[in-house]
Amino acid sequence: MAFKHKDIIGLQDLTREEIELLLSTAENLKEINSRDIKKVPTLRGKTVVNLFYEASTRTRTSFEIAAKRLSADTINITASTSSVTKGETLSDTARNVLAMKPDIIVMRHSISGAHHYLAKRVSCSVINAGDGAHEHPSQGLLDMLTMRQKYGKLEGLKVAIVGDITHSRVARSDIFGLTKMGANVFLAGPPTMMPPGIERLGNVTVCKDMREAVDGADVVMMLRIQLERQGKTLLPTMKEYSRYFGLNRNLLQLAKKDAMVMHPGPINRGVELNSDVADSDQSHVLKQVENGVAVRMSMLYHVSGGELPTE
Amino acid sequence: MAFKHKDIIGLQDLTREEIELLLSTAENLKEINSRDIKKVPTLRGKTVVNLFYEASTRTRTSFEIAAKRLSADTINITASTSSVTKGETLSDTARNVLAMKPDIIVMRHSISGAHHYLAKRVSCSVINAGDGAHEHPSQGLLDMLTMRQKYGKLEGLKVAIVGDITHSRVARSDIFGLTKMGANVFLAGPPTMMPPGIERLGNVTVCKDMREAVDGADVVMMLRIQLERQGKTLLPTMKEYSRYFGLNRNLLQLAKKDAMVMHPGPINRGVELNSDVADSDQSHVLKQVENGVAVRMSMLYHVSGGELPTE
Amino acid sequence: MAFKHKDIIGLQDLTREEIELLLSTAENLKEINSRDIKKVPTLRGKTVVNLFYEASTRTRTSFEIAAKRLSADTINITASTSSVTKGETLSDTARNVLAMKPDIIVMRHSISGAHHYLAKRVSCSVINAGDGAHEHPSQGLLDMLTMRQKYGKLEGLKVAIVGDITHSRVARSDIFGLTKMGANVFLAGPPTMMPPGIERLGNVTVCKDMREAVDGADVVMMLRIQLERQGKTLLPTMKEYSRYFGLNRNLLQLAKKDAMVMHPGPINRGVELNSDVADSDQSHVLKQVENGVAVRMSMLYHVSGGELPTE
Repeated sequence: MAFKHKDIIGLQDLTREEIELLLSTAENLKEINSRDIKKVPTLRGKTVVNLFYEASTRTRTSFEIAAKRLSADTINITASTSSVTKGETLSDTARNVLAMKPDIIVMRHSISGAHHYLAKRVSCSVINAGDGAHEHPSQGLLDMLTMRQKYGKLEGLKVAIVGDITHSRVARSDIFGLTKMGANVFLAGPPTMMPPGIERLGNVTVCKDMREAVDGADVVMMLRIQLERQGKTLLPTMKEYSRYFGLNRNLLQLAKKDAMVMHPGPINRGVELNSDVADSDQSHVLKQVENGVAVRMSMLYHVSGGELPTE
Repeated sequence: MAFKHKDIIGLQDLTREEIELLLSTAENLKEINSRDIKKVPTLRGKTVVNLFYEASTRTRTSFEIAAKRLSADTINITASTSSVTKGETLSDTARNVLAMKPDIIVMRHSISGAHHYLAKRVSCSVINAGDGAHEHPSQGLLDMLTMRQKYGKLEGLKVAIVGDITHSRVARSDIFGLTKMGANVFLAGPPTMMPPGIERLGNVTVCKDMREAVDGADVVMMLRIQLERQGKTLLPTMKEYSRYFGLNRNLLQLAKKDAMVMHPGPINRGVELNSDVADSDQSHVLKQVENGVAVRMSMLYHVSGGELPTE
Repeated sequence: MAFKHKDIIGLQDLTREEIELLLSTAENLKEINSRDIKKVPTLRGKTVVNLFYEASTRTRTSFEIAAKRLSADTINITASTSSVTKGETLSDTARNVLAMKPDIIVMRHSISGAHHYLAKRVSCSVINAGDGAHEHPSQGLLDMLTMRQKYGKLEGLKVAIVGDITHSRVARSDIFGLTKMGANVFLAGPPTMMPPGIERLGNVTVCKDMREAVDGADVVMMLRIQLERQGKTLLPTMKEYSRYFGLNRNLLQLAKKDAMVMHPGPINRGVELNSDVADSDQSHVLKQVENGVAVRMSMLYHVSGGELPTE
C-alpha cells in the first residue's frame, strides 16, 4: 500500500489504514537507530526545512535527527531570526522558502490552520510539527506506537487522558488517532479546560473526575500544564491542580496492573506527574521520545513517496 | 575560462566576462535544484562558514542550501551568539574562524569594507552576503539571472530601480552589474534617498519622478523600505511614500507590456508594492528567490576553483 | 593501545599515557584539515549532539567542524531555545536527548559536576566542552598539543599561567594535564584570584608576581579576564590589572628567547595581552585554534571506540 498524501497535517485526515502504515514503517525504521552506523540513503539529496514559528527543541531536534538518519539535508529556520520579524506574512515566507525547492517543510506555527493554508499553496510536502491547539500528529503517532509496542494492538485499550484538553494539540491528535484505531478514550480535567461537545468525536468519554478516567485504564496519558500559555486565568493554584489532576503512585493503582504512564514532556515534576511515577518502571516517557525519531522518519519517508532510491 | 578571483566582494570588482561566467554557470547548476536527488559532489569535503553579523534568514538559508546541494559541510555562526558579543574585533574573529581551515567564509557585516579587510587577511575565499549600504553581489547576480531568463540578454534593457537608493546595497550591486552588462538604469526615489553624483557610474539616469523611471521600462525593480534601518527621519509618512514611490497596477501600465516586476524581499505589501502587482503574473519575486540558490551555488563553485573533483 | 573511557570529563581523570594517545592521534588527524577534501568516513552514521547551556561559538564551532570532518551528523541544542527554559531538569533533558540515540553528547554547562552526573546516567559518550570553573579538557589538550609541536615534548618545560586562576577552567585543565606530563607550572595572578592550596597539585609554584612566573619560561599562557563573569567585585580597575598582570613586549623579554605566548581567546587586547605581543611571531594563539579542531577530532574518535569502520 502506498501513502497517498502529499502532506501530514493531522491524524483527523488519515484513515485507519494510513495510520497503520505509518506505525508499521516506524517500527521497521526504528531498528536503524540502534545500529552502529545510523544512516540509510533513503532521502539522500532531499532538502528538509524545519520552519519553526515557536521554539521547540525537542520536536525540532527529533525531526532533524530523523531527516539526517535518512540522509536528507536539513535547514533550520526559526521565527525569531527570520523575516517574520520584518513583518512578512506567512504566505510570503512560505512561498519564499518554497522557491528554494525544498522537498519537505516541517512547520510549527501557533495558528491552527496555518498548515492547511501552506500545504494548499506549495507543491512540496508539509508536515505539521504542532499548530496552536489543533494537532500535533507526530506526537499522536509516537504515542500510539509506544502503546502498540506494549499491547500489540490499540483496539479495545482504555486510554485515560488527563489535563488541559482544550488547549492541547497532543490531546487532539491522540483522540483522533486512538479513536480511529478502536481505543476507548476517557478524558479528565478542570471544567475550564474541557471542550464542550468533545464526546461527539466518538469513543470518547468525559469523566467527572480523574479517578474515573484512570480506573482500569491500560494507559494513563498526562498532559503538560503549559504555564507559559494558559497563565493563571484558567487555573486554580498549582497545588490545587496537582491535588485533583496530578498522577501519583496511589492514584495509579486504580489503573490496570502495570498500566503505562505517558507524558509528552517536558514534565512539570510534582505538578502533573509525581517523580515516584515519572521514574518508575511504568513510565514510558523516554520510550515515547525514542519512538519519536522513528515515527518522524516514517512520516518523512511516506510523504516523499515512500520509495527507496536506486543509485 | 576560469574564474580568477579568490573572493567575491562586489560586482564593481568583476568584469563583464566574469559576470557572464557566473550567470552561465548558475543557469547550468539551476537544473540540479529540480532533480529528484538535489545533490552533486562538487564541494564534498569543503567547509563553508556562514558568518552573519546581521540576521538574515533568507540569504543565510539560500547560501546554506546552495552549499549543501554541492555537498559542502556548512557551519552557521551568528553574531548574537558569538565571541563578537565578548568584544572581539573583526580581525580576531576572522583569524580564529580561519584557523579552523574553512574553504569559504560567507559573511554579512554591517560595515562596508569589512569584507575587503577580511579577504586581504585570510587565505580562504570570502563571499560578501551583504555589507552595510555597499554591495550585495549575490542579489545583483540573481536579479540579472532572472532578467536574462526572460529577455535572453541584459544589453539594452531599460531597468527602473525605485526607492531608497542611498541605503540600498541591492541597488548598488544592481547598478554595478547592470551597467556593466549594457543595461540602461533609471533611478527614482525621495531626494533624501538619492545619492548625489550617482549618474557618474555610467548608463544611470536619475529621474524626476517614478513615472519617468517606469515609463517604457522592461524591468521595474522596487526596493524594500527598511523601516528598521532608516526609521522615520528620512521619510515622510508611509502613506505619502507609498503614494509617490509605491507600485500599483495603474502605474505599471506605463512600463512595457508584460514588463517584469522585481523586489529583493521581504515585501512591505501596500508600501512599496501593492498586492495586485506583487501577486500578478508580472511579478518575478519568487523566481528571484529560486535563482538565488543557483547563483550562490555558482559563486561557491567558482571561488573554489571551479573544478569538479575526481574521486 | 585502546582508549578505555566512554567519556572525557576532565584531564584529571586521564593517565599520562591516555593524554599521549589523544595528542598523538590529534597530530595524525591534523593533516586531514589541510587536505583539499577535508573529510574522512570515520564517524559516518554517528550522531553528535552539541548540548550547550552556555553560549560558546568557538568551542561549539570547533567541535561541529571536527565532527563533520569525521562524517558524523551533528545536532546543535542551545539552552536559550530548549526545554531548559521550560523548567526541565538536567536529568530530564539528558534522558530525552539520550532517547534519540546520539552516540556522543558534547556538553557545556555552568555547573561543575554536571558532566559526571550526566555521564553516569547515559550509555552514550559524554565530552566536556567546559563546565563552570572546573575543567575544559579540549582546551587543555590543544594547549599541550601546541606546546609539543614547538618543543617536541612537555617534560621539563616551564609554563607560566597568568590571570584569574580561581575561576578558570582552562587553567585547571592545563594544570592537570601539564603536571601529569612533567611540565613545571608557575602561576601568577591577583591574590583574590589564586585558589589557596593549589600548590598541592604537584609541580605547581605560586609566584609572588608575574615577573617571577615569566622569568625563564618556555611558555607564557595568559588567561582571559572574564568581565562578564567576575564583574568588578574581584578586580581593581582594568588599567591596574593590566599593569600588574598584562603581558607586553618588555615583560616577555624575561622569558626564554622565542618563548611561546598563548591565550585561550577571545583576547581582551590591551588588558591581558598587548597587541605588540598578540600579533608577534611568538604568539601561538591561532595555532591553538587550529589545533583545537584536531584535538576534538581525536576526542570524538577515541570515545567512539577508536576504530575505523570497514565499509
